[in-house]
Amino acid sequence: MNIEECINFLLTGAQHKVFIKMKNSLKEVGLTPIQYGVLKCVWQFDMSNPKEIAEFLGVENSTVSGILDRMQGKGLLEREIDANDRRHIIIRLSDSAKELEKSVNRIVLEVNQKVLEDFTEEEIAQFKQYLRRVKEA
Amino acid sequence: MNIEECINFLLTGAQHKVFIKMKNSLKEVGLTPIQYGVLKCVWQFDMSNPKEIAEFLGVENSTVSGILDRMQGKGLLEREIDANDRRHIIIRLSDSAKELEKSVNRIVLEVNQKVLEDFTEEEIAQFKQYLRRVKEA
Repeated sequence: MNIEECINFLLTGAQHKVFIKMKNSLKEVGLTPIQYGVLKCVWQFDMSNPKEIAEFLGVENSTVSGILDRMQGKGLLEREIDANDRRHIIIRLSDSAKELEKSVNRIVLEVNQKVLEDFTEEEIAQFKQYLRRVKEA
Repeated sequence: MNIEECINFLLTGAQHKVFIKMKNSLKEVGLTPIQYGVLKCVWQFDMSNPKEIAEFLGVENSTVSGILDRMQGKGLLEREIDANDRRHIIIRLSDSAKELEKSVNRIVLEVNQKVLEDFTEEEIAQFKQYLRRVKEA
């Protein structure tokens, strides 16, 4: 099998290309793509538990912990003891993080539109379905 | 835009899943996916120039240099001065690397088949075309 036919090579190349675009665009608001992922877990799903966020984003707990450290250092969030279960930590976004929501959503939408600008609606739906099938297999 | 619709999120999730499968399978012969990429550049394209390999694999020269260090440490290759241009280094695979070719190709083919086992031939062709369009855009 030629390497240009290898699904790992193709996925890695496409992911890298899109990741770099996303990374460069999110710099505008001082975020990395994974920090966007954390914020989106709160904005979209009201998650506050770091473990739940790690699981959703498919990264290790220790990785999320480091990301939260940097986000806390930038004043985007605070960690608190969960009043319902004092063994757990919950995160709470700061006002400055909340203020980012609109511009971050606009940036992410623009990157998506740019990356898929030559795709028809049908092709986009099919492409996303293929990616989900691979991810969930 | 919901995060589950974000092309960066979907590509990252699918890539991660396939990368882990490839990584675990290549462990059988003591290689990492990127080391496979380097070997394949030699086997398939007869590349011997580290810069050319870096460019094909889409990684930094310094990254390839570190990968070559580790591969040299494992006895997979030697670096030599290019007799045609003494300013350049070329790599030359060892016999033990050459002996890996068949089993590595079998492993990579098996991972590809496993990842795409629920896809029809037509879907596979379409999926790969989408990934190439994103990568080359």
